[in-house]
Amino acid sequence: MKIPVVRKILEANDQMAEELQATFAARQILCLNLMSSPGAGKTTLLEQTLRGLSSDLNMAVIEGDVQTSNDAERIAATGAQAIQINTDGACHLDSSMVQEAVKQTDLNALDILFIENVGNLVCPAAFNVGEDFKVTVLSLPEGDDKPEKYPSMFARSKLLLINKIDLLPYLEFDVERAAKAARTINPEIEVLTVSAKTGEGMDEWYAWLKGRRQEKT
Amino acid sequence: MKIPVVRKILEANDQMAEELQATFAARQILCLNLMSSPGAGKTTLLEQTLRGLSSDLNMAVIEGDVQTSNDAERIAATGAQAIQINTDGACHLDSSMVQEAVKQTDLNALDILFIENVGNLVCPAAFNVGEDFKVTVLSLPEGDDKPEKYPSMFARSKLLLINKIDLLPYLEFDVERAAKAARTINPEIEVLTVSAKTGEGMDEWYAWLKGRRQEKT
Repeated sequence: MKIPVVRKILEANDQMAEELQATFAARQILCLNLMSSPGAGKTTLLEQTLRGLSSDLNMAVIEGDVQTSNDAERIAATGAQAIQINTDGACHLDSSMVQEAVKQTDLNALDILFIENVGNLVCPAAFNVGEDFKVTVLSLPEGDDKPEKYPSMFARSKLLLINKIDLLPYLEFDVERAAKAARTINPEIEVLTVSAKTGEGMDEWYAWLKGRRQEKT
Repeated sequence: MKIPVVRKILEANDQMAEELQATFAARQILCLNLMSSPGAGKTTLLEQTLRGLSSDLNMAVIEGDVQTSNDAERIAATGAQAIQINTDGACHLDSSMVQEAVKQTDLNALDILFIENVGNLVCPAAFNVGEDFKVTVLSLPEGDDKPEKYPSMFARSKLLLINKIDLLPYLEFDVERAAKAARTINPEIEVLTVSAKTGEGMDEWYAWLKGRRQEKT
């Protein structure tokens, strides 16, 4: 009994995700689904990115949170469009939530739509939400064993952003071990190291974003 | 249609959790359900605790992981009994999984059974697994805003362990803000700060464990 129900939910979700993808494709909008553990630094990364690329690209953020609109307020403070989804306890975003949010988003002249998922290294991986690519953010304090321990998110991501690289001197984290583990799960995954706090590596991330956006036009 | 199904799952889970509690109560075993984000340091905390209290208490660990038995191997290396649950993708432990693991656990003369949940700050909070108390571990790099953003876990915990306190000089984390946010959600919650790495604060944690265990006898 259980499995068909789960399958139906995922099928309905995927169908809605495809509709979202078609909407974004028609407008040449690059859509990225950002996923990570709580506190890996997704919002800080977005704040820096929105400020760093504001003269090059028109960007908006759909913010997924279990509770509070703290993150959306931080995004709005950069001047970018921020749309809040409160999941009311749910542990991941799904396409129906994103579809509701997109209705409230001004898509005109938009280049990139970021969807910041709920902080959770497990559940969000199973749900497409209309993105071109999934991006997983892993922060140094979480440990270099995380790709191995939570493989599904890494298996489905186009890019692994290893964040908080500025903490390397204070932690035992082997960047190569983490990258290698991610590539074992997903040989196609690209890996960049950044510090959203100090700006280290952010230019490579910006170049990556511009490249992916270019491919959509 | 959806809500009754969810309710039934939770009801069945709670009933099984009560059976587990009865089993542990009959043997005066303190059972703790440890929850946190991935990489908050639950396993390191347990390794230190098992070593630090090995002459005082007989302890065992049920290890919940999405994948791999890395953590159970680390626990077993301390000499303590380690029982592995692989959830095979599932984002939390439930009572049926724990019941299976308990069948393989030697409960004789056991004082404390730790259940290390899947690293996830959302889903595990909804599922009792036979514990006397839930303990949430929050590590400094995750940020002091997490109780506010992920309230359900903090609402249901007896104790908040703020871990990686040794990283305080390198991070912007306001211990009082985190503690206050947790107490706003749950006025009864106790708060301890520790570093499983340096040992700071561990004596208070050990005293807490001994006190709770004492209450069971």
